[in-house]
Amino acid sequence: MYLRNNNANRVAIIGASGYGGIQCLRLLNEHPQFEVTFLGGYKTASKNWNELAPFLQLNDNQIIQAPDPDLIAEKADFALLCLPNGLSSSLTPELLKRGLRIVDLSADYRYRSLEQWSEFYSLEAQKLNRTDNTLCAEAIYGIPEWNQQEITNAKLVACPGCFPTAGLLPLMPFVKQGLVENEGIIIDAKSGTSGGGRNPKEHLLLAECSEAISPYGVIGHRHTSEIEQQLEFISGQKIQIQFTPHLVPMVRGLLSTTYCRLRDPGLTAEDCRTVIEAVYRDKSTIEILPVGIYPSTKWVRYTNKILISIQVDKRNGRLIILSVIDNLIKGQSGQAIQNLNLMAGLNHELGLPLLTYYP
Amino acid sequence: MYLRNNNANRVAIIGASGYGGIQCLRLLNEHPQFEVTFLGGYKTASKNWNELAPFLQLNDNQIIQAPDPDLIAEKADFALLCLPNGLSSSLTPELLKRGLRIVDLSADYRYRSLEQWSEFYSLEAQKLNRTDNTLCAEAIYGIPEWNQQEITNAKLVACPGCFPTAGLLPLMPFVKQGLVENEGIIIDAKSGTSGGGRNPKEHLLLAECSEAISPYGVIGHRHTSEIEQQLEFISGQKIQIQFTPHLVPMVRGLLSTTYCRLRDPGLTAEDCRTVIEAVYRDKSTIEILPVGIYPSTKWVRYTNKILISIQVDKRNGRLIILSVIDNLIKGQSGQAIQNLNLMAGLNHELGLPLLTYYP
Amino acid sequence: MYLRNNNANRVAIIGASGYGGIQCLRLLNEHPQFEVTFLGGYKTASKNWNELAPFLQLNDNQIIQAPDPDLIAEKADFALLCLPNGLSSSLTPELLKRGLRIVDLSADYRYRSLEQWSEFYSLEAQKLNRTDNTLCAEAIYGIPEWNQQEITNAKLVACPGCFPTAGLLPLMPFVKQGLVENEGIIIDAKSGTSGGGRNPKEHLLLAECSEAISPYGVIGHRHTSEIEQQLEFISGQKIQIQFTPHLVPMVRGLLSTTYCRLRDPGLTAEDCRTVIEAVYRDKSTIEILPVGIYPSTKWVRYTNKILISIQVDKRNGRLIILSVIDNLIKGQSGQAIQNLNLMAGLNHELGLPLLTYYP
Amino acid sequence: MYLRNNNANRVAIIGASGYGGIQCLRLLNEHPQFEVTFLGGYKTASKNWNELAPFLQLNDNQIIQAPDPDLIAEKADFALLCLPNGLSSSLTPELLKRGLRIVDLSADYRYRSLEQWSEFYSLEAQKLNRTDNTLCAEAIYGIPEWNQQEITNAKLVACPGCFPTAGLLPLMPFVKQGLVENEGIIIDAKSGTSGGGRNPKEHLLLAECSEAISPYGVIGHRHTSEIEQQLEFISGQKIQIQFTPHLVPMVRGLLSTTYCRLRDPGLTAEDCRTVIEAVYRDKSTIEILPVGIYPSTKWVRYTNKILISIQVDKRNGRLIILSVIDNLIKGQSGQAIQNLNLMAGLNHELGLPLLTYYP
Repeated sequence: MYLRNNNANRVAIIGASGYGGIQCLRLLNEHPQFEVTFLGGYKTASKNWNELAPFLQLNDNQIIQAPDPDLIAEKADFALLCLPNGLSSSLTPELLKRGLRIVDLSADYRYRSLEQWSEFYSLEAQKLNRTDNTLCAEAIYGIPEWNQQEITNAKLVACPGCFPTAGLLPLMPFVKQGLVENEGIIIDAKSGTSGGGRNPKEHLLLAECSEAISPYGVIGHRHTSEIEQQLEFISGQKIQIQFTPHLVPMVRGLLSTTYCRLRDPGLTAEDCRTVIEAVYRDKSTIEILPVGIYPSTKWVRYTNKILISIQVDKRNGRLIILSVIDNLIKGQSGQAIQNLNLMAGLNHELGLPLLTYYP
Repeated sequence: MYLRNNNANRVAIIGASGYGGIQCLRLLNEHPQFEVTFLGGYKTASKNWNELAPFLQLNDNQIIQAPDPDLIAEKADFALLCLPNGLSSSLTPELLKRGLRIVDLSADYRYRSLEQWSEFYSLEAQKLNRTDNTLCAEAIYGIPEWNQQEITNAKLVACPGCFPTAGLLPLMPFVKQGLVENEGIIIDAKSGTSGGGRNPKEHLLLAECSEAISPYGVIGHRHTSEIEQQLEFISGQKIQIQFTPHLVPMVRGLLSTTYCRLRDPGLTAEDCRTVIEAVYRDKSTIEILPVGIYPSTKWVRYTNKILISIQVDKRNGRLIILSVIDNLIKGQSGQAIQNLNLMAGLNHELGLPLLTYYP
Repeated sequence: MYLRNNNANRVAIIGASGYGGIQCLRLLNEHPQFEVTFLGGYKTASKNWNELAPFLQLNDNQIIQAPDPDLIAEKADFALLCLPNGLSSSLTPELLKRGLRIVDLSADYRYRSLEQWSEFYSLEAQKLNRTDNTLCAEAIYGIPEWNQQEITNAKLVACPGCFPTAGLLPLMPFVKQGLVENEGIIIDAKSGTSGGGRNPKEHLLLAECSEAISPYGVIGHRHTSEIEQQLEFISGQKIQIQFTPHLVPMVRGLLSTTYCRLRDPGLTAEDCRTVIEAVYRDKSTIEILPVGIYPSTKWVRYTNKILISIQVDKRNGRLIILSVIDNLIKGQSGQAIQNLNLMAGLNHELGLPLLTYYP
Repeated sequence: MYLRNNNANRVAIIGASGYGGIQCLRLLNEHPQFEVTFLGGYKTASKNWNELAPFLQLNDNQIIQAPDPDLIAEKADFALLCLPNGLSSSLTPELLKRGLRIVDLSADYRYRSLEQWSEFYSLEAQKLNRTDNTLCAEAIYGIPEWNQQEITNAKLVACPGCFPTAGLLPLMPFVKQGLVENEGIIIDAKSGTSGGGRNPKEHLLLAECSEAISPYGVIGHRHTSEIEQQLEFISGQKIQIQFTPHLVPMVRGLLSTTYCRLRDPGLTAEDCRTVIEAVYRDKSTIEILPVGIYPSTKWVRYTNKILISIQVDKRNGRLIILSVIDNLIKGQSGQAIQNLNLMAGLNHELGLPLLTYYP
């Protein structure tokens, strides 16, 4: 295990002006054990933060710098990479060589082989000429409540995004214990528009996507394969899921409605609730609601929490799982910091908000 | 068949100040063949319309009257009942006796027996002492593109609401032709908040439901039974569906994402599109999108149209159907007027908007 | 006056894929007297409309063509120019030469001299080398309820945008009759985000501008000068207004709250209402609300109407005017078609929607 | 001055289930010096908090109790009254008698005499038979950055609401120093819908108020008199303002656009910025933006901050002030806790959030 000393919690955030970077900076600003010592960006290099972000004026008004590996290595012990898919893989090997430990928020190291990654991120694969297959195999898929030990020791953590997080956390206990059939798992997911990033796109304009809900990537969405990879790893069996994301006219929040079939149709909702409650009992970031209480995404906005509700249709033994997260915190930056906490030998939930502001 | 003469297209709207009534009045105001000759309301009786509705100033500014059956019969040939569940059944028999033909927007006559209705509307059943079982059996479940002939001849049409309309229209062709397995049909539905009506409720306040998506009625929602009744009627077999409604932070619009399994896993999305296209080819109110184009609810706002998109996951033979409607028009008042059109011997789509305003 | 024959109502829409173009096409699709015979676009040339716009499928699915003046002249009698500021002035002279009559939705001909235009549109002026000063002087500023006769005879109409329309229509009668002081007129305006156009910009993303209201262009906004030019023209005196636009988290709608001071502080709200009612009495597109009823932008969405409410603070003789429009219809494309109607010798309101769908 | 000891920071929140109460509970939950020792409510008495509020699950899950003065006095040193207007005045005298110190969030003690209160709250005045004129005179109007000393010593603080807070804070320095003309001050204010409270009302339904902006209370709104009272107190002169509130389709946030006239038209925006910056320099809750940066309400959501921007139209010497707050925190509960902090001898900003989550 990596040793941690008190002077070694210096963090570099690379890609500071996107939504991932903004959240990381915001969250670390109040963190008791980490200090952001390097702010990196490509397009924003040489600007100072407060000029760039009147909405988040910081006392520690740093200048954003071009992400030079040597400079980063000099200034920081950890790096949070908040970069577009593909870009991370050109920086990560350089930083690892220089001894940094990395939490990568992109998809670049979420697959165990370059081959798989290239299949699902073919556009990015064509542009780049990646050869870091070894890193793909070594990287840890970082769900802090699930594989804490591996994350603690990791050099490189691939931090799952919002859809896999909301889908996997409630499903993994049932799949692992073989309580649900592997076939026929359906994840119908609904996400706020901040999930599409800060780069302007026509379909994310308020005028276009407000007063509207629409599905996208109906079959073959990239996250299908990512979720399947994890479920197969856990179950040791081939699993195909049906995953359908939808765009919802709200800024933040993600709801997964998951349908699967109990192997034992005699199990009740209370039974199933007991199963998952037992697995996550000591995790402050996971809350299992009483049977019959269904969560709203609003209940977790601006928090690092996932709320889960379990229901069973007794008529046919179907298990229905509702789970909600803030897509930018538990679904992205908050989870990244949970991983960072573990890597630094800290409690995974340290310094992260667990209570929303309502309404 | 009922004969129609040109002087007999006088319509009474009962329950004018709710969302159903407002839409009916708005739509009929531009209809070339109907004239609203009676506006009825309980709470709003004796007020004039324009005073009540500064948002919809009409040249024909009528006074709202208490819904006296004799008066209604004198003034109108048809009645559109836009009343809360339960209330309709106390007025309908009286109006039928007096020779009116009725389109009822409530759930009171959507079940073929009082017994079934009482099971799913137990609260309303307890308050009332309904004995109109015969009417339940005689009433026609009015989906104009499906059972046109029955509607044309009907005295009483029970007009389906938004969830059953968006769920049934795309599913019925596949169920009827036996192309999908009866077991495992899942309808994951998403609705705007106007579906909850105009009566103020805390959970429908903008401050509560905006910036949020949440499921409700996760098992045993009333519309589950209504949809099942229709599918069983069509297929002649027992069918259980899984139906989960969600509340989406927008005013109008409803999206159904339906998952089922093809009996013949060799069928492609194009094959399935051809099947449904053949059934609805001549219906201007139904449009089947090209494979790969997924609809937004925004594309049908303020129209009486349903857009349907078909997709198949070849890996496992799952059929995924996307369908969108305006919950207050095709899902309520527009459909009611389609029924009215048929009952009056007119083309079902007459006088109804088919083009949205975008954005 | 230009003569009109029944074969000469062929319209070209140039710039069809922006919000202005979409509205024009939507509105003309139901117009009884015009036919869209040419769809022009730069970026979208050679695509067909229905492919481009799944949200507005037309029976008449035209191919968009590059805006060649000769071709346009062959195909159309009128042109609606829905182009970015500056671009119109490079096409307009060519079309006029070829005998077309033009309604221009951009700002290119809203000022009576090139000099003024160049002052307020300096960026555009630097890029272009405009020499069409004569056309600026000849162009008619087209507010159909105000200068009907001039529009009817015009070859080139500069159609005012949303802010000037909502600000000027209620203010002009009071300024013209000298009822308010010229000094100290304040227009505090609030607009939906579709006013910013369809071209993706960060600040118009739902994630950025929803759940927020913000002012912009606080002093010296371009529309200040445009409004002042008109008021000075009407009053024959120097007038400076204070104009502050705000961005509101909604798609459509514009509210102007105008403050000014009555010269005669004894006038009541009813008096002032009588004044403006007398001016606009016969205009179906303008409705003066009863004193004490304040309009919501929602009441005019998807209509070509302006609602106006008048209030007076008796304590200090201040006149407060509230006016609401749909920024894309009465504030843009609907008004353009009003102008087109007049130019074709038709009633200005012909074919335009006056009733909203609520809610 | 009241002495403070470490054991005496026990707080009662009365009216816990409205928006004011929810915020107070949320904020105090993380406060380092206060403990909520009594949760009171009328309708919710005997329920426990977590059952009532699945959106805000607290470790300290208290039972809500009927607001009995003796019990409150036994349990708490301070009371935060989050009650509807009128109701507070029936509880306040009882609590004061028993030695509690009170921050009242209602309007009951915001006027210096019962007579004034009865004029503007006539409905409430008719129902009640208030005789606590002395208390009205003694109560301190609590703007913590303005009259810190009085609040510190107060027994009863009347906490201003959102509109007066956003209007007064930026205006008071200019009025006090006589820099602006007393006549012609216009406050055009825009508020999110949570300002209308949690009690369900038709016009606050998402279906009604989303996609809409509308003015209300256009002349004679209650807050006009409250703002005028304060400005007159500060200036020693008669002042009439024009105040127009508008309802904006967002949950939280309030923007005031204030127009007034500089006595010395030679002053620049920078000059005026210097004036207000000097007054509030040491207040972490008030931030004066650089000239030319205009705030969005989004920048202060979930914080206790007010952002102020100053602009001057040199053409006519008009001063335009933009100010934004979170209406439920700086405009209500956060400000209440600032007052509480002062009364307990603490720094006014202690324990209150100053950084938003963006977007």
